[in-house]
Amino acid sequence: MQKICVITGGTGYVGSHLAEYLVGQGWQCHLLVREKSNLSMLARLKGKVTTFSYRDQDELNAAFRKIKPRVVFHLAAAVITRNEGNHIPALIQSNVLLGTQILEAMTHAGCTLLISTGTYWQSYNTEGYNPLDLYAATKEAFEKIIQYYVDAHGLRAITLRLFDIYGEDDVRPKLWNALREIAGTGRSIALSPAEQRLDLTHISDVVAAYETAFCLLDEKENIQNEVYDVSSGHFHTLREWVNAFMQAAEKPILVEFGGKPYREREMMQPVCRKW
Amino acid sequence: MQKICVITGGTGYVGSHLAEYLVGQGWQCHLLVREKSNLSMLARLKGKVTTFSYRDQDELNAAFRKIKPRVVFHLAAAVITRNEGNHIPALIQSNVLLGTQILEAMTHAGCTLLISTGTYWQSYNTEGYNPLDLYAATKEAFEKIIQYYVDAHGLRAITLRLFDIYGEDDVRPKLWNALREIAGTGRSIALSPAEQRLDLTHISDVVAAYETAFCLLDEKENIQNEVYDVSSGHFHTLREWVNAFMQAAEKPILVEFGGKPYREREMMQPVCRKW
Repeated sequence: MQKICVITGGTGYVGSHLAEYLVGQGWQCHLLVREKSNLSMLARLKGKVTTFSYRDQDELNAAFRKIKPRVVFHLAAAVITRNEGNHIPALIQSNVLLGTQILEAMTHAGCTLLISTGTYWQSYNTEGYNPLDLYAATKEAFEKIIQYYVDAHGLRAITLRLFDIYGEDDVRPKLWNALREIAGTGRSIALSPAEQRLDLTHISDVVAAYETAFCLLDEKENIQNEVYDVSSGHFHTLREWVNAFMQAAEKPILVEFGGKPYREREMMQPVCRKW
Repeated sequence: MQKICVITGGTGYVGSHLAEYLVGQGWQCHLLVREKSNLSMLARLKGKVTTFSYRDQDELNAAFRKIKPRVVFHLAAAVITRNEGNHIPALIQSNVLLGTQILEAMTHAGCTLLISTGTYWQSYNTEGYNPLDLYAATKEAFEKIIQYYVDAHGLRAITLRLFDIYGEDDVRPKLWNALREIAGTGRSIALSPAEQRLDLTHISDVVAAYETAFCLLDEKENIQNEVYDVSSGHFHTLREWVNAFMQAAEKPILVEFGGKPYREREMMQPVCRKW
């Protein structure tokens, strides 16, 4: 029997790669998108996935009852970091409200398996909870909502805490794209002292982790609500990563380390928890 | 120097009593209300408090900068229990978004003290977190948002977990008002077997607890983010409470114990934590 899933955030970098990967694995994928979503990331998936949207809870419930998903891969998020206050409604709407409405629709459709998405920013320089910013706090808040559906409605969930992700076709405004842009131009870029450590996980490993999490949840019925870090395990300083990038580049890249200060609450030493 | 506070939820039963009490204690009280709020609970406070509302974060920040509150007493909540799904946006808006916007405004105005409001329903038959319903889960979710402002912005907070509250002028749709309504009419009311235990705290004790929490937070600078239960300590079964009510009533009240089943996830044995 074909495996059926709902994916949220399918128009984003990770979500679109996950959809592509799962289609290749024989899954039937239904992507929950906003009516005004930019669907350009889905061009390469044309005809291979279906999309749907909703205006209220009743519509969402009806869509889930029709699709009958085995599992929901929930990746949608407003990644508004270091927010300035005016983005609070968007943060809460995308990172708490949307997910809650999905959980509710799952209970109506008898879908009991959720793979959700967290961020290592929920643990700022610690193993415990200390959110780096409000975005990270909304992720933690949503985990408390998940717990309700686990306790009261028999849902079972795994939340994957993602670290930094890279990939060949990543067009997000990341440092690597800025470096590529100035390569060979003579322009330079100012960075912090760049001694903060970070993990870069390849997009292919990240999408595989989502399917692995589903298999784990599907097989082990004693899993109620767990959180796993998705990390390569290699934490290098940003300076080391940048130097490696510069050596691999075909054109010279001018970087001024220490040309600007660290940000407030810069994540210096991320912690990847082991199980 | 006069103490200045902002109160949310001031149009509700507990909030309006808190405002009245604090005015009597010499506080200057500013009540944050919705533009369409029913202000009838505030009639007896006419001229003694001011009200304000906001449309966006900038307006809220400006209001807080003008008021310069010493502390915010945050009682506003959408108390939508046993929800049917369509109330999710209202629950998240009132119980997560509003509070987050207030925390943001506090940081803009240099206000660092918050007394917030939780519910004993966050711990369903346990000492730990097991939300009785989605309403309780949104309360827990908001505590995770508070933690961000504590960690990143130097806020200090106490959350008061309230139990059941009673008072002479309580017009909320509570059992006691239903009993009073049928007294002497010959009509009867069907209750569950009513063996669930509950605590009834008098409204005057509850409002005093809010000021006590402020004094504690104000005096003890080592308090960062704590949660206290507000309870009389007397847990009787509902049957005992109802019997006591019937004995005190002047007219006969007809009650059919066991005439209907317990609700799903009925709170049978609330836990009041000691410190």
